[in-house]
Amino acid sequence: MTEADSALPAEFALIARHFRPLAGPGARDLIDDVAVIAPPPGRDLVLKVDAIVGGVHFLPDDPPETIGRKLLRVNLSDIAAKGATPLGYLISVSVPRGTPDGWFAGFAAGLAQDQQEFGVTLLGGDTTSTPGPINLSLTLIGHVAPGGAPSRAGARAGHGIWVTGTIGDGALGLAVAQGKLADPTGYLLDRYRLPRPRLGLPIGEIASASMDVSDGLVQDLSHICRASGVAARIEAALMPLSPQARGAGPAWLATCLTGGDDYELLLAVPPGREPALIAAAARAAIQVTRIGGFVPGAPSVDVIGPDGLPLRISTAGWSHF
Amino acid sequence: MTEADSALPAEFALIARHFRPLAGPGARDLIDDVAVIAPPPGRDLVLKVDAIVGGVHFLPDDPPETIGRKLLRVNLSDIAAKGATPLGYLISVSVPRGTPDGWFAGFAAGLAQDQQEFGVTLLGGDTTSTPGPINLSLTLIGHVAPGGAPSRAGARAGHGIWVTGTIGDGALGLAVAQGKLADPTGYLLDRYRLPRPRLGLPIGEIASASMDVSDGLVQDLSHICRASGVAARIEAALMPLSPQARGAGPAWLATCLTGGDDYELLLAVPPGREPALIAAAARAAIQVTRIGGFVPGAPSVDVIGPDGLPLRISTAGWSHF
Repeated sequence: MTEADSALPAEFALIARHFRPLAGPGARDLIDDVAVIAPPPGRDLVLKVDAIVGGVHFLPDDPPETIGRKLLRVNLSDIAAKGATPLGYLISVSVPRGTPDGWFAGFAAGLAQDQQEFGVTLLGGDTTSTPGPINLSLTLIGHVAPGGAPSRAGARAGHGIWVTGTIGDGALGLAVAQGKLADPTGYLLDRYRLPRPRLGLPIGEIASASMDVSDGLVQDLSHICRASGVAARIEAALMPLSPQARGAGPAWLATCLTGGDDYELLLAVPPGREPALIAAAARAAIQVTRIGGFVPGAPSVDVIGPDGLPLRISTAGWSHF
Repeated sequence: MTEADSALPAEFALIARHFRPLAGPGARDLIDDVAVIAPPPGRDLVLKVDAIVGGVHFLPDDPPETIGRKLLRVNLSDIAAKGATPLGYLISVSVPRGTPDGWFAGFAAGLAQDQQEFGVTLLGGDTTSTPGPINLSLTLIGHVAPGGAPSRAGARAGHGIWVTGTIGDGALGLAVAQGKLADPTGYLLDRYRLPRPRLGLPIGEIASASMDVSDGLVQDLSHICRASGVAARIEAALMPLSPQARGAGPAWLATCLTGGDDYELLLAVPPGREPALIAAAARAAIQVTRIGGFVPGAPSVDVIGPDGLPLRISTAGWSHF
């Protein structure tokens, strides 16, 4: 700390120590009030904000390293769902007074690791105290070819329903954290704490509708149905489950289908483009699975059970109110 | 509410009812996960995030109408300080479960009013519950001519120190809210609750350094001194005080100089450009006042009292840690 810094309030020293090393081009070293960037010419901007709250979205004893990374990754997942390239982010950090310096160090170290992995930098931020739990908000900025970001409204009867990765691990990981499920390898808990944003697929050229699965597969699929005016029919037997999720047993299937925190991509894909998806996913080393298709009808999600009969599943996912 | 909406969790109905009417172009009616906008061609983007917390930045009994407007305006003030044009914003809203619908209605109504006044629209948001106090974070996006946003580092000895509007009203308004000061007309409390972002000045063509005064004039001026490597000398007698601030009496002068919540612009202006500032301010109907000048020397802020002698004033402003 320089002599000049020592005359400043603790807030500025904290920003200089932990957050300035994360700052990228345009961030003005976090010593100005704003970031200034030249947007990539000829590209649309894709913008997303998500907030997480201690005791609601993460657990009080979650390590600070993974809290920051999870927040960044849930936003990256939304950017990935639109086939966009992430650029940078701004973050608000509200923490109780007396939060130890080591918490900030861990939080920033986690972000630094993910900045490297995903090619983004910090553009700006705000730190405040709060009498409540930790409250973090992150705004992510990405870019995409003009018109290249699918909405939720383009799914049509006959289009396939595809997901990336495996479904349900995040929700099972939460159950592990709550002591309701065993997880000898730690795989499920890790999936809960660290989503895997599926960046790198040419979504805009492939999907007629897309989103990421954050509030539960069935609920999120119902959003596409509603926006697109179609019905969806998916088969539990086709669901990509991790070995760990299969190991949890059939009693946990409903949790996998309706629980949150997947952060996998959910895509509507016209039949003619399914080969392109498969090829692109192979190049990006991302698992993709066709779990069903859209059919004519009023917006609804039918889940066919392993026995070929419809499963009764509530479409209600996670809601805050 | 449509039949389809009634099947959705309360969170979505709340967003549709209160926030969708605020959504502008690119927001995709807040039913997609992201906003997609084409940035103004040939312009730099100016980005800013600020968070406010109940009990820290606003008072529990502040009306929800002004809470949202204050949050928007403190961010607009930063954009104004860089001579940028505001475009749109994303917002995170964390509120306790059971927050009445009327609170959201008032909050959104305040934002709607300011959207009209300042020409911005909502691009995206996130609503979450929190076991703590209300926590709001807003990311504002504006644009400016390439290279046109001054930093804090360009002030040089001989440049004038200018401020817009009046200084101290916000800090006095807080004292009013805390019952420490009388405010028969309600002017000071209103200044505390509703900053006046000074948009519309061609800052980039005029100022060698600029910022807005949010943490107290003396502290914020010390930031420019430190970044620019100069000393500042301001005169209390030149300070633009509102009639209400003058009425509070000389005992409140230090509060005016060091208290936060001014949200006026603080500009370093080379002598040759002072006429341009005066002319532009007259066109924009914004009061501007020269309160002193930068002088050679180690970074410091000297305040000359009404008697011509230096005032002892702590440079410490508001800090969160």
